[in-house]
Amino acid sequence: MKRYFLFILALVALTMSAQGYFAPPVQSPEISRDGSVTFKVKAPDADTVKLIIDSRLDTLMRRQAGGTWSITLRDLEPDLYMYFYTIDGVKVLDNDNAQVLRDVKSVMNTFLLDPKGDCPMAVHDVPHGEVRAVWYDSPTLGEKRRMMIYLPPGYELSRQKYPVLYLLHGTGGDETVWLEQGRAAQILDNLIAKGKAEPMIVVMPNGHTDTPAAAGMGADNNYQPTFAHKQWMEGTFESSFNDIMKWVDANYRTRAAKRYRAIAGLSMGGYHSLYISANQPDDFNYVGLFSPAIGRMDQGKSKIYDNLEEKLINQFKQRPRLYWMGIGKKDFLYKDNEEFRQLLDKNHLRYTYHESGAGHEWANWRDYLVIFAQQIFK
Amino acid sequence: MKRYFLFILALVALTMSAQGYFAPPVQSPEISRDGSVTFKVKAPDADTVKLIIDSRLDTLMRRQAGGTWSITLRDLEPDLYMYFYTIDGVKVLDNDNAQVLRDVKSVMNTFLLDPKGDCPMAVHDVPHGEVRAVWYDSPTLGEKRRMMIYLPPGYELSRQKYPVLYLLHGTGGDETVWLEQGRAAQILDNLIAKGKAEPMIVVMPNGHTDTPAAAGMGADNNYQPTFAHKQWMEGTFESSFNDIMKWVDANYRTRAAKRYRAIAGLSMGGYHSLYISANQPDDFNYVGLFSPAIGRMDQGKSKIYDNLEEKLINQFKQRPRLYWMGIGKKDFLYKDNEEFRQLLDKNHLRYTYHESGAGHEWANWRDYLVIFAQQIFK
Repeated sequence: MKRYFLFILALVALTMSAQGYFAPPVQSPEISRDGSVTFKVKAPDADTVKLIIDSRLDTLMRRQAGGTWSITLRDLEPDLYMYFYTIDGVKVLDNDNAQVLRDVKSVMNTFLLDPKGDCPMAVHDVPHGEVRAVWYDSPTLGEKRRMMIYLPPGYELSRQKYPVLYLLHGTGGDETVWLEQGRAAQILDNLIAKGKAEPMIVVMPNGHTDTPAAAGMGADNNYQPTFAHKQWMEGTFESSFNDIMKWVDANYRTRAAKRYRAIAGLSMGGYHSLYISANQPDDFNYVGLFSPAIGRMDQGKSKIYDNLEEKLINQFKQRPRLYWMGIGKKDFLYKDNEEFRQLLDKNHLRYTYHESGAGHEWANWRDYLVIFAQQIFK
Repeated sequence: MKRYFLFILALVALTMSAQGYFAPPVQSPEISRDGSVTFKVKAPDADTVKLIIDSRLDTLMRRQAGGTWSITLRDLEPDLYMYFYTIDGVKVLDNDNAQVLRDVKSVMNTFLLDPKGDCPMAVHDVPHGEVRAVWYDSPTLGEKRRMMIYLPPGYELSRQKYPVLYLLHGTGGDETVWLEQGRAAQILDNLIAKGKAEPMIVVMPNGHTDTPAAAGMGADNNYQPTFAHKQWMEGTFESSFNDIMKWVDANYRTRAAKRYRAIAGLSMGGYHSLYISANQPDDFNYVGLFSPAIGRMDQGKSKIYDNLEEKLINQFKQRPRLYWMGIGKKDFLYKDNEEFRQLLDKNHLRYTYHESGAGHEWANWRDYLVIFAQQIFK
């Protein structure tokens, strides 16, 4: 056994020299069985250490003997959480936690809280679907573009055709974000396993037409995600959406009809979903607007955005089975959404409305997917 | 346009409040056309700021007016680089760079240096293969396990059968690492586009049998990557490898014969490749040992490791087309590899040997894949 331990030591030593800092296998944050969560960070020389969790919490940590700062949180809801520390005002990641995700350009640690084993965002011991990163051809945009595809468990072995949910991201996201912060694969796996959602294909394209792929995956190799896109909600994504649908129907066993097609998105993706479905009234039986960025853009940029009221009236004449809207009470888009609902009400267009707590954030959007996915293709 | 800007402002404000720190769209590090790279970090109160790049560089940065610290590096080779800063000894990521990767448990920033547009690790404007995250059944281990599959460009549209490279990670890695730090998809895309490598399927399983999937992807949701695995090079991965091969041959259009099968891996994955190919002499025509962790383990843990010399002699009787070994001059496994080569030499077993600079690190392993992939299936 001696050589075995020497080998481990050598690897550890190598990692220390190669990476500067080797984190020992500490579980961080520490999650107890009752669901309380303890954060610890060593900073002996610091004056102020803070813990920031999503938009949920921004709190001082307490200095313990030995220069470790800590805090224990109780009664957090089962969910995926994103957090980081600040040490005297400088953002620092939790070096004991290798799990990180990106939100726009900001990298944060994550942990998953699932004390009862029933959080739909967690990985459970159920059949797992397959996730693919594919490049599709967009003749309209004149390029190959990357998107992610979720195929339900059993897809490969069956000859069945499946319904399709097109699931769109917000301004800060790309084709990967519904799988990462959105936990779409886990949510679908869990709902399908419990018989709460129909097995479906989920298509997650990149809604920014000025870049073909997520950071590091496109020919603009060092591309940095940003809010300041050159092309942004000016119609190119919506008007090239048929390229995606054609490619998906040609390459997967889809039920290629309105009855088996849904489109949903968050923020900008909600805006995209609204306009794509309004312009293509024969294509989507289910529409999900998650905190949609409606009423914010100048009209006249593209025909896509003209005559919305008229288009909606026409769309609802084709009787979509579900027109679902969700928004958080604290969302800065709340008022715009209210105005949009008034427009629908005025025209007696029937929709399902879900109001939740919190604001314009993932805690809502994951929940909305859980709710929406159970109501489609049934 | 006013509302448009208000909307951007609202999103930015939201992000600032939600994430604490919103990074403006600054290109960091700054890469000039001549390939020089400038790093800048604001730390007005710091006494010492360092830049650490892989194992390549550990250097002080210079304080500029205004409390920004900077350094410019020239003559770096085209490659993927990983780096971070330390501010007064505390590890800090580059908040202007959203591109990060993980090495074992350590998260670092990355950038890609490709001044002439010919770096095989960069994304170029060539046909891209498809990457899949799949769950295969391992009857031997009694569980479903996750692995990554690269399918060459054109796979979906052709009816062709393809050769298969099994590509294995090291102790610190998992099924994702050859795609992330290893840039395997980009390397294969680029080599195939230039006609330098045959179109092939690349299979990247998880070599740690005590966990079914990478961090966050398995039912041990908050699992932290570590060197201290419960099961480690004790034969379970090698003895369950047939489950992977069977699943791949059943689910993909493979040319399921020795002539069209290669196995290669780095460090622990080199050790795995060595023993799997030695125990299955009829299965692999091409073997790649990248800085393999040979001669380090106690024998007698598993029949897999017994009688290696005899097994090698038998394996070479079946005349593998290529038995390739690469190692860096500074690798801490150099001596063990030398001893292994002496064992091969003594028995007149023919192999190809490649010695490079640097040590036990990705800069070598990406290069080895570039070299190895051009020599197989020809």
